Amino acid sequence: MKDIAKQTGLGLATISKYLNGGNVLEANRIAIENAIEELNFHVNEFARGLKTNKSKTIGVVIPELSNIFCTSIITCIEDILRQNGYGILVCDCRTDAKLEYEATEFLVNKMVDGIINMPVSSDGAHLQLPLSKNLPVVLIDRKIEGLPVDAVVVNNIEASQKAIEHLLQKGHKDIGIICGPKDVFTSNERLLGYNQAFIKKGILPNQNLISYGDYTVEGGHSALKELLKREPHLSAVFVTNYEMTLGAIIALNELGIKMPEQISLIGFDNLHLAQVIKPKLTIISQPITQIAQSAAHMMLKRLAGIGISAGETINLPTELLMGESVLTKNRE
Amino acid sequence: MKDIAKQTGLGLATISKYLNGGNVLEANRIAIENAIEELNFHVNEFARGLKTNKSKTIGVVIPELSNIFCTSIITCIEDILRQNGYGILVCDCRTDAKLEYEATEFLVNKMVDGIINMPVSSDGAHLQLPLSKNLPVVLIDRKIEGLPVDAVVVNNIEASQKAIEHLLQKGHKDIGIICGPKDVFTSNERLLGYNQAFIKKGILPNQNLISYGDYTVEGGHSALKELLKREPHLSAVFVTNYEMTLGAIIALNELGIKMPEQISLIGFDNLHLAQVIKPKLTIISQPITQIAQSAAHMMLKRLAGIGISAGETINLPTELLMGESVLTKNRE
Repeated sequence: MKDIAKQTGLGLATISKYLNGGNVLEANRIAIENAIEELNFHVNEFARGLKTNKSKTIGVVIPELSNIFCTSIITCIEDILRQNGYGILVCDCRTDAKLEYEATEFLVNKMVDGIINMPVSSDGAHLQLPLSKNLPVVLIDRKIEGLPVDAVVVNNIEASQKAIEHLLQKGHKDIGIICGPKDVFTSNERLLGYNQAFIKKGILPNQNLISYGDYTVEGGHSALKELLKREPHLSAVFVTNYEMTLGAIIALNELGIKMPEQISLIGFDNLHLAQVIKPKLTIISQPITQIAQSAAHMMLKRLAGIGISAGETINLPTELLMGESVLTKNRE
Repeated sequence: MKDIAKQTGLGLATISKYLNGGNVLEANRIAIENAIEELNFHVNEFARGLKTNKSKTIGVVIPELSNIFCTSIITCIEDILRQNGYGILVCDCRTDAKLEYEATEFLVNKMVDGIINMPVSSDGAHLQLPLSKNLPVVLIDRKIEGLPVDAVVVNNIEASQKAIEHLLQKGHKDIGIICGPKDVFTSNERLLGYNQAFIKKGILPNQNLISYGDYTVEGGHSALKELLKREPHLSAVFVTNYEMTLGAIIALNELGIKMPEQISLIGFDNLHLAQVIKPKLTIISQPITQIAQSAAHMMLKRLAGIGISAGETINLPTELLMGESVLTKNRE
């Protein structure tokens, strides 16, 4: 700062104000920016503003670092926030509500201007602290009912309906579903869509065709095997997240069951996976870039003081991408 | 703390010492722990020790949150550190050395007791600050020559040699390689192993068979297409990371080239991917759990004050896992 003062002839207060994001006279701004360029001055993006009351840092709390759907969204959010002068700090909580609480408390007490969270807790107790401090909170992927926080989610009910309707149209009857854990928002919604698709056609869904994994590769693997044991007539299955889709396909390969000849399959997420698998997978695809953009812009809007705690929900549509993993069945 | 004092009859100083990880009399420890349990007292793992000179937090700086190899290791490191009372904070730097510098500076100045880093910078300028403060630094995946920091890496040269020797044994001659970026440690080492495998057999490696991706899906996709254009006789290819393996297989599928009938392929990492692809992939597999355990224990050893700045390197072996993506060629 002393070097900039020498170079520009301006006072330290003005330079400090500029560096902390305050308003300075246009002429001074230009003089300071020229001096910074000449001196090759280094502003630490992460540390900027630590001396002001704004840290210019957003805390991100996610269930698992190894969840590729989640980290793809966060990476994209990060790019947009960084372009707007904000850095991010990531804590994962290993799908543990207690650790989620602690991570949120830690981030709020020490540094961050806002919280982006893919929540594990279903009551949102961990969000009371940021909300009490009027910090903006944006949820992604999952909503928490009754809490005045913004959320960006996809239309999970519609997503499931689309998948099941496609299978029904292709002549399938014994259509299984591999759901996520019973108490998770997305899991409940996706099961609801499954049931609704049948009911709309006047068919009562067979509860034996419903199986629960835990959104992991291993969970999808064992859920598919159990489902087949219980319902050997299974002719199609809808798997409701990426990791379980991987697991279900590994199980089919191990059992020597041919897809789609013996079982049709609709998977979830990850275009890359759908393309490496033969036959190419039919999948429900979530709009990762759009989710990230919506969440980042929502956060920036709230940081600018617009409509904090409005509890807005942005609901984005998914897409059914056709591959070759669904067979048309002859109606018997 | 007052509640614990009331419950135990101990002084606040003793309780504070205990909560900050200090040594207290065995009888007092038991009394405090019983009181904590009875009062259902909540110690914030992330915030513990913020009032002491140790934050009990390790900063993790990685190139990309969406690199699954990297986040799998970090998740496993985190579990071990947490069992030992340490939390982690993750910053990714989008493979940008300037952001890596800033993330490291930020974490060091504000909170952390040590740095775990999968480095982007090849000169390690960003590590001068933690080293000057005697903070332990453990590198994973990549070494930086000439810097007295600990590192956990795999034997990349041997890994490549194993893959190429296997292809040579199966009768292949025109064996391509898709390398990572030219200035990255792992990329250089893997290319070295490729060249050495040929030289050991008295064959001069054909430089036209060497192609560079950038460790992304897109990079692997275009590298494979370029390689095939330049060398239509290509009979086998070794792809040197997970994301590029995905990309190369997508390219083969798009071109309608059958694996292994028309091209044999050895991929890298990710057992799950190898199992969902048909035919099952032959891959070089890195020991993720062992890398994580070695790095976590190295960090804990240094945090305990043992041998800081020793610059130890732990070198772990990889494994060639046989699938069905390599065809035996008749020698012409």
